[in-house]
Amino acid sequence: MSEAQGTLLVVSAHAGDFVWRAGGAIASAAMRGDRAVVACLSYGERGESASQWLQGKGLDEIKAIRREEAEAAASALGAEIEFLDLGDYPLVESREAIVKLVDLYRRVQPTVVLTHTLHDPYNGDHPAAARMALEARILAQAIGVPNGDGSTPTKEQIIGAPPVFFFEPHQPEQCDFTPNVLLDITDAFPRKRAAMECLPAQKHMWSYYTDLAVRRGVQVKRNAGPNLGLPHDTMGEAYMRYLPQVTNVLS
Amino acid sequence: MSEAQGTLLVVSAHAGDFVWRAGGAIASAAMRGDRAVVACLSYGERGESASQWLQGKGLDEIKAIRREEAEAAASALGAEIEFLDLGDYPLVESREAIVKLVDLYRRVQPTVVLTHTLHDPYNGDHPAAARMALEARILAQAIGVPNGDGSTPTKEQIIGAPPVFFFEPHQPEQCDFTPNVLLDITDAFPRKRAAMECLPAQKHMWSYYTDLAVRRGVQVKRNAGPNLGLPHDTMGEAYMRYLPQVTNVLS
Amino acid sequence: MSEAQGTLLVVSAHAGDFVWRAGGAIASAAMRGDRAVVACLSYGERGESASQWLQGKGLDEIKAIRREEAEAAASALGAEIEFLDLGDYPLVESREAIVKLVDLYRRVQPTVVLTHTLHDPYNGDHPAAARMALEARILAQAIGVPNGDGSTPTKEQIIGAPPVFFFEPHQPEQCDFTPNVLLDITDAFPRKRAAMECLPAQKHMWSYYTDLAVRRGVQVKRNAGPNLGLPHDTMGEAYMRYLPQVTNVLS
Amino acid sequence: MSEAQGTLLVVSAHAGDFVWRAGGAIASAAMRGDRAVVACLSYGERGESASQWLQGKGLDEIKAIRREEAEAAASALGAEIEFLDLGDYPLVESREAIVKLVDLYRRVQPTVVLTHTLHDPYNGDHPAAARMALEARILAQAIGVPNGDGSTPTKEQIIGAPPVFFFEPHQPEQCDFTPNVLLDITDAFPRKRAAMECLPAQKHMWSYYTDLAVRRGVQVKRNAGPNLGLPHDTMGEAYMRYLPQVTNVLS
Amino acid sequence: MSEAQGTLLVVSAHAGDFVWRAGGAIASAAMRGDRAVVACLSYGERGESASQWLQGKGLDEIKAIRREEAEAAASALGAEIEFLDLGDYPLVESREAIVKLVDLYRRVQPTVVLTHTLHDPYNGDHPAAARMALEARILAQAIGVPNGDGSTPTKEQIIGAPPVFFFEPHQPEQCDFTPNVLLDITDAFPRKRAAMECLPAQKHMWSYYTDLAVRRGVQVKRNAGPNLGLPHDTMGEAYMRYLPQVTNVLS
Amino acid sequence: MSEAQGTLLVVSAHAGDFVWRAGGAIASAAMRGDRAVVACLSYGERGESASQWLQGKGLDEIKAIRREEAEAAASALGAEIEFLDLGDYPLVESREAIVKLVDLYRRVQPTVVLTHTLHDPYNGDHPAAARMALEARILAQAIGVPNGDGSTPTKEQIIGAPPVFFFEPHQPEQCDFTPNVLLDITDAFPRKRAAMECLPAQKHMWSYYTDLAVRRGVQVKRNAGPNLGLPHDTMGEAYMRYLPQVTNVLS
Repeated sequence: MSEAQGTLLVVSAHAGDFVWRAGGAIASAAMRGDRAVVACLSYGERGESASQWLQGKGLDEIKAIRREEAEAAASALGAEIEFLDLGDYPLVESREAIVKLVDLYRRVQPTVVLTHTLHDPYNGDHPAAARMALEARILAQAIGVPNGDGSTPTKEQIIGAPPVFFFEPHQPEQCDFTPNVLLDITDAFPRKRAAMECLPAQKHMWSYYTDLAVRRGVQVKRNAGPNLGLPHDTMGEAYMRYLPQVTNVLS
Repeated sequence: MSEAQGTLLVVSAHAGDFVWRAGGAIASAAMRGDRAVVACLSYGERGESASQWLQGKGLDEIKAIRREEAEAAASALGAEIEFLDLGDYPLVESREAIVKLVDLYRRVQPTVVLTHTLHDPYNGDHPAAARMALEARILAQAIGVPNGDGSTPTKEQIIGAPPVFFFEPHQPEQCDFTPNVLLDITDAFPRKRAAMECLPAQKHMWSYYTDLAVRRGVQVKRNAGPNLGLPHDTMGEAYMRYLPQVTNVLS
Repeated sequence: MSEAQGTLLVVSAHAGDFVWRAGGAIASAAMRGDRAVVACLSYGERGESASQWLQGKGLDEIKAIRREEAEAAASALGAEIEFLDLGDYPLVESREAIVKLVDLYRRVQPTVVLTHTLHDPYNGDHPAAARMALEARILAQAIGVPNGDGSTPTKEQIIGAPPVFFFEPHQPEQCDFTPNVLLDITDAFPRKRAAMECLPAQKHMWSYYTDLAVRRGVQVKRNAGPNLGLPHDTMGEAYMRYLPQVTNVLS
Repeated sequence: MSEAQGTLLVVSAHAGDFVWRAGGAIASAAMRGDRAVVACLSYGERGESASQWLQGKGLDEIKAIRREEAEAAASALGAEIEFLDLGDYPLVESREAIVKLVDLYRRVQPTVVLTHTLHDPYNGDHPAAARMALEARILAQAIGVPNGDGSTPTKEQIIGAPPVFFFEPHQPEQCDFTPNVLLDITDAFPRKRAAMECLPAQKHMWSYYTDLAVRRGVQVKRNAGPNLGLPHDTMGEAYMRYLPQVTNVLS
Repeated sequence: MSEAQGTLLVVSAHAGDFVWRAGGAIASAAMRGDRAVVACLSYGERGESASQWLQGKGLDEIKAIRREEAEAAASALGAEIEFLDLGDYPLVESREAIVKLVDLYRRVQPTVVLTHTLHDPYNGDHPAAARMALEARILAQAIGVPNGDGSTPTKEQIIGAPPVFFFEPHQPEQCDFTPNVLLDITDAFPRKRAAMECLPAQKHMWSYYTDLAVRRGVQVKRNAGPNLGLPHDTMGEAYMRYLPQVTNVLS
Repeated sequence: MSEAQGTLLVVSAHAGDFVWRAGGAIASAAMRGDRAVVACLSYGERGESASQWLQGKGLDEIKAIRREEAEAAASALGAEIEFLDLGDYPLVESREAIVKLVDLYRRVQPTVVLTHTLHDPYNGDHPAAARMALEARILAQAIGVPNGDGSTPTKEQIIGAPPVFFFEPHQPEQCDFTPNVLLDITDAFPRKRAAMECLPAQKHMWSYYTDLAVRRGVQVKRNAGPNLGLPHDTMGEAYMRYLPQVTNVLS
């Protein structure tokens, strides 16, 4: 179980989500030599690009802008990125999209999967992305489920059962998000900040998500050691593990 | 964070609980060189010794039998054991007991804590033990809370914030026990079996808890890799983490 | 309300599910003279036939094998069986499938319905089967919902409101399965065992589900009488009632 | 399991609770020949007697009035009644009270237990009564727990594991009360009405609880058969089963 | 935030739902000068018209009857009403229906939205209506989501984030309906009663829902002031707020 | 219901809690002319004064320091403050403390109550304070519950049923804190900041709680209007309403 040879797969509904919510985990994986792959299901062209629409930009132009930004951010984090261009608002679930994701899982062979929460009263695309990510993960494990080209997968093509983590939504408590994993991203934070700065249209979010990293960093400290009320500079990200942790050691 | 230098503290309401429910984790810790300490709050003399009462034995005799058995079982697991003799059925919560536990925490300096679930409709002593274990764990962290002898603790005496795991109750679903950690105890299982065999009055439980280890072992496999339906011999124990996991790596 | 004239309907996603999970209830119903009907929505040909795929068998061959096994198992339990052949992994919900199920309900007139839980993170087909079983049950009650042939149902064709029970999933705690009914299947267990033995490809499951029956049997005893720690040979199955029980007597 | 020889034990925090909330079940038990015993932990003299306090009555006078009313109501239902006079507002939990309840359980040997819900944000006495009823029920099962006079119980004195039902609180949804049993009290309702009329100070409650019986009666019908929108005169009471039902037949 | 200029939008699965469940809120809004708009997604022609089907009426006739009744009831409440005629039992979710609802939201510009609960084990149409109402509400807020005619919405056309309230289902506890808002409808009740009387086929429901208003009225009083056990004539309706309340004053 | 004549009562376990968690609501109440009263159950002398203990200060000295700071902070907010000096770590619940709180409720006649959440795995004093605040609130309503001096309360002395709000704990998601009220504290924030600055030993918390106010302010905006991604300067505090809201208008 050498983690240095792991592969992190991030299934993101829109082009920006993976930066704000999982940038620390992605950069951290890349920095220790893991492969990190981001699958953007849409560009967030309709639902998360209000300022561009207000400026009168057209659909294709907006998609191009968001794609470029996302590529720059992924690069800053040290991740590969793929775009499925499934459309957003709504992100419609379909058999075709699931088949594409099954193929992606089998090609990438992730050892860890990150995606959205299954509940989000503010954005229906997030749970839709999560449902597809979870369904494809199960199908990709079954040797009886054909590849997208109709062929039967080999034993090497089917995947194992990679753990799944939900990353933090904007209003966590309304999304039934109870963090059960606090990730120390102190070392990775400069890369996350650099990736955030690749998204100039949401400049006011830079400090917002820096503050959140401070907040989750305080909790990293609180849950790890005695609370002597001393200052520290730990930065954190919160996650929610979907399935039981499998381990040899309780710690 | 070298785990080989860790200390496992198990807070058990009755003399047998730690064997059936956490024997694998204890043996596993001992086998890798960690220290393991069991704190038995009572002998289970009234509530868990029906067969001895039916045989007409007296209270002191029963306590002595249960103590001996528990010592033998702890020894088979590789653990130290302490008895607080607080009485059972009911195990009454008190300030005095909490003070003793605070001192115990400060003396033992656990890096991991195991105890009962907070809900158990079949046995009120189990949640009582858990509540005391949790309260003492918080108090032991505070430098303003005096030791049992009235002295102010030193910085070395106060404890950090060791993670807490609930072990599996007899009827898990009725106790709000949703396992979020599956521990592989394959290597440690022979020791657990030996410890179970130190409890001859509950001989019919030996196979019961062996079967449970098989069952949880199946889940260890299911959650860790592809399900090809092949036989295996993994043995497991289920735990429920009470507080968020703090980590540098998602896995 | 003579139970000897009842009809048990079991809606099962795959060909094997009804054996492992509800075999005791089915055999028990048959043994007291009730009619038992199993509706298999798929053969489990893709998702639950890994060993056959590994042997290089083809889709039709696998379906035929699983059909034969399921027929033999149903027969051993004393149940009729129908196959809807809707495909699996994924089992896709559709209006056509629902219409078929509505007709089935009206034809069979079940007095009790068994199906999967509504949540299962390990298998999306199980909740899909449950959703269809539940939706069809409601539609079949409405005199305004036409039969599959377009005719308006008669008052005799519409069904009442049969109670629904979810049977036990493989990892109950991860499926929000909190058993609120413990069924004594001691007398029916030999038939269940015989039915399990009709499924030779999953031989390692025979002991697994025998052990589970022992485990649930212990709980049957624990919830029904004093716990004197004595051995017994009660076998059990766990269920989760979906809707309130209607009764004349609290017991 | 002849129900005609059963014994119903109702643990009620205040003198009136058993009438409004469980009168139908009590009358129904009495009418089929079961024994019914009501244990009133207090008279409700401080918290549920506002009109008497407003009239300037004194504590002892109020207790006497409430006792008389409760005796009359119990008699109308066909039940015996015992008063523990533990005081109310607050009803304080104590070891002494638990010991008395253990003795009561062993003397009465209930086959069914009714009590309050464990959560009630409007009245702390209700959960306190439920906690004591539940703790005593567990202790009374253990042969190692002495009787109130210090003697060791005989095998005949310890009790089995009678099922527990919570009766309906005034604001069910705020008390986590999700009814999972709907009891048909149509035949018993006249007795319940007569018992309510033994409580003249709360005359405005008579119609309130009659309306509730109609409401729960509608649900009895809805959950038992097809909904043709026809009028009916079924009366009901709602209960919440605390522990799994043990049964030989799913129905 | 002058409420007298507000607009209430009620999304109702069937023609009668808005009367029984939200008639008080609608009449109350109308009486203080707000606009109230009811969107009936179906006539309830198949699932909620049993008595007409039993009389042998045809589909179109039943739809016409229900439409007329609903129009009369809306008028009695002081509300406008629109029919989307999407069909019922089942009410099928579709992109087309969502687009119509987005246009409706943008046309009506609601300041408050009422709809069904997201869970209802007795009626699948209710959650389907709620899901569509909620999804359309989110899409209507996004300037990048086109109008039904393909045009890009103006800043005036997109809507804000109106609060959403679920109205009370028939069996609230089975629908995860925990009321967190109790609405005083005392003044509006006569209009609600008049609206109910526009639905002659369900005459037995008139008293049922009058009793419910009494019951919820008692809770309005209980949660608002001291409980002196005095009679009163407050009438109420219960609601469940879906999203956090935004306010300047805690009260 | 003129809010300008309301009285806000804040029941706080330790001397600092009310500042960080409810300072905005308190200042806001004071600024609109309401009375605000803070009841500090302890000084937080043992559990929340680590830095003073590390400096070698004694118990009385620490209590005096914390008292002075709390008085200054209350004054900055515009609130009165009372100290019950019940001790902390642990804050022990007792009948005597409850009686004092009942008298306090009757003297202050609060129209709104703020306190801690009922669950907090990091600090047992917080739930203990909440339980006492809630129990005393119920007892203070009952005319049959005597005042602390033994006298029967007059009708004017008993209190109504003031709404209760839980303020935000340090790790909200671990405390089952799901905010259902978002309070706009933009105008009051400067006073909250001034009050925070009265607590110099926790200087690093000033920015932490300023960031939290920004974060909750973003949610105030998100839940109140269209999300155009524009910057704003709304500040907020989150609350969790314990009992249903009673209202005449849904908004």
